[in-house]
Amino acid sequence: MNVKEFDLIRWIRRAAPADASVVVGIGDDAALVRAHGPSTLVTTDMVIEGVHFAPGGATPREVGWKAMARNVSDIAAMGGRSTFAVAAAALPRGWSEADARELVLGLLDCANQFGIRLVGGDIAATPGPLIVTVTLLGDLEGRPPILRSGARVGDAILVTGSLGGSLLGKHLRFRPRQAEGLALAERYAPHAMIDISDGLARDLHNVLDASRVGARLWAADIPLSDDARRAAQASGRSPLDHALGDGEDYELLFTLDPATAGVLLADQPFDVPVAQIGEVTPSGALLILPDGSERPLEPSGWEHAT
Amino acid sequence: MNVKEFDLIRWIRRAAPADASVVVGIGDDAALVRAHGPSTLVTTDMVIEGVHFAPGGATPREVGWKAMARNVSDIAAMGGRSTFAVAAAALPRGWSEADARELVLGLLDCANQFGIRLVGGDIAATPGPLIVTVTLLGDLEGRPPILRSGARVGDAILVTGSLGGSLLGKHLRFRPRQAEGLALAERYAPHAMIDISDGLARDLHNVLDASRVGARLWAADIPLSDDARRAAQASGRSPLDHALGDGEDYELLFTLDPATAGVLLADQPFDVPVAQIGEVTPSGALLILPDGSERPLEPSGWEHAT
Repeated sequence: MNVKEFDLIRWIRRAAPADASVVVGIGDDAALVRAHGPSTLVTTDMVIEGVHFAPGGATPREVGWKAMARNVSDIAAMGGRSTFAVAAAALPRGWSEADARELVLGLLDCANQFGIRLVGGDIAATPGPLIVTVTLLGDLEGRPPILRSGARVGDAILVTGSLGGSLLGKHLRFRPRQAEGLALAERYAPHAMIDISDGLARDLHNVLDASRVGARLWAADIPLSDDARRAAQASGRSPLDHALGDGEDYELLFTLDPATAGVLLADQPFDVPVAQIGEVTPSGALLILPDGSERPLEPSGWEHAT
Repeated sequence: MNVKEFDLIRWIRRAAPADASVVVGIGDDAALVRAHGPSTLVTTDMVIEGVHFAPGGATPREVGWKAMARNVSDIAAMGGRSTFAVAAAALPRGWSEADARELVLGLLDCANQFGIRLVGGDIAATPGPLIVTVTLLGDLEGRPPILRSGARVGDAILVTGSLGGSLLGKHLRFRPRQAEGLALAERYAPHAMIDISDGLARDLHNVLDASRVGARLWAADIPLSDDARRAAQASGRSPLDHALGDGEDYELLFTLDPATAGVLLADQPFDVPVAQIGEVTPSGALLILPDGSERPLEPSGWEHAT
């Protein structure tokens, strides 16, 4: 580590807020945080230039936001509240210290908005693309985790927000659905939940596989985003295709027993709409088109460009 | 993520042992682990091809070991026991699935030896160098953390093992000093502790800066490794220079009150020798040479090749 990196770490120590829950913060061999209940959620996710955003297609601040927010979305999909984060950044050799600070400010923008404490990290310069790895801890506040494997035959399948076309910008600026995930966990007890990162079709298949069930998805009820329509104009594919396959929506996909789903749909308690888009069946995965015809729902979610 | 990566994750799920402490392991949006006491240590560290090992200079299995072991060393330097890990791997595009499995086996070799559960991760292929980021949780088992900032004037400065020349091989095969760190924390209550990653001189300065004290280091008492002597023959520098500056020794550097240090030095309770190499003073940092002359101890520890 060179002297500039020590300077940067000193700056980060000042920029990152701490409170009594952070017993030892940035600057020692490890951080020490006050754990919450008897168990802790933990998740880790990378954001990589050229994989998760186009080379040069995002500012350092946007990348920092996204790196933190992707992990918040994962904790939310378990029904948890994000608490403490560490971040490791492999910076391209051409980056200035100002670029690095912008990246950290993006991490902190998101951390501060969701009450997360950044308590440690690692920084190095490399000849490769920018890679930011965030590891996030989370708290279930005494509730059971909401797994992918809990979907039951007869459940309603629901989704927050609208889907498709995230590459037009939402993938850098999405707001992870922590408030919605917490409210669902506290008041509606979803049987299964996942966040849509790889695409509605792929992530639904992840739930179906883990739960050993099937699904009928109602194409006419899938909420299409304006960006799905804009992306369709450019691609020549349908907005529905974009909603099924694009991914990086970071909306919550979950299942509820039908009575609870009815209450939730009537309540619409969130800032973002909730829609039922299908139902859980014993096996198979079908897409029901508006004309009533069916076709197999392939798990052709958006695949990262690896 | 492509289908092969799903296969790899399925393989990792089978390869990674779990136990009752892992409520939710690999394969959901986040892991859920049973936390230990009221607080949790957390640390994150990258291992990067071309920065932490020469391009092509380590097998995937060695890189996996090192990525886990570096973090174990950090938790040990707080006086803690490592518990749960997540790992994110950015793999070069040319890597085969067999290479990726070898990397995971290296991570698991180290995890299993130290009783750590690998509970989650992220994998992607990139055009850049191999980067493995491990985040590790640790448990203090009710003891206070041992910080860099606790050194007191009059303390003895001690080190485990021998130093220098780690690039000849030890940097890939070191055994992190978890047993020694735990025994020190339980029975000798070090005032300050750090693991030597950046070099004895640099890491001692890190302790001195954090503790706002100085030191006199006795050159004749610094334990030189055989590799420090071999490296010196090749470099034309002295073995002492290598011991002061090379870094990546992953030995523990710590301070004790002099009476306790006397007991520890007489006990020699570890598989690896412990030596006193100096004493804490009110200010300044001096190296005392064998002829009794003094020179300033520069913080010229090994600097990562950034």
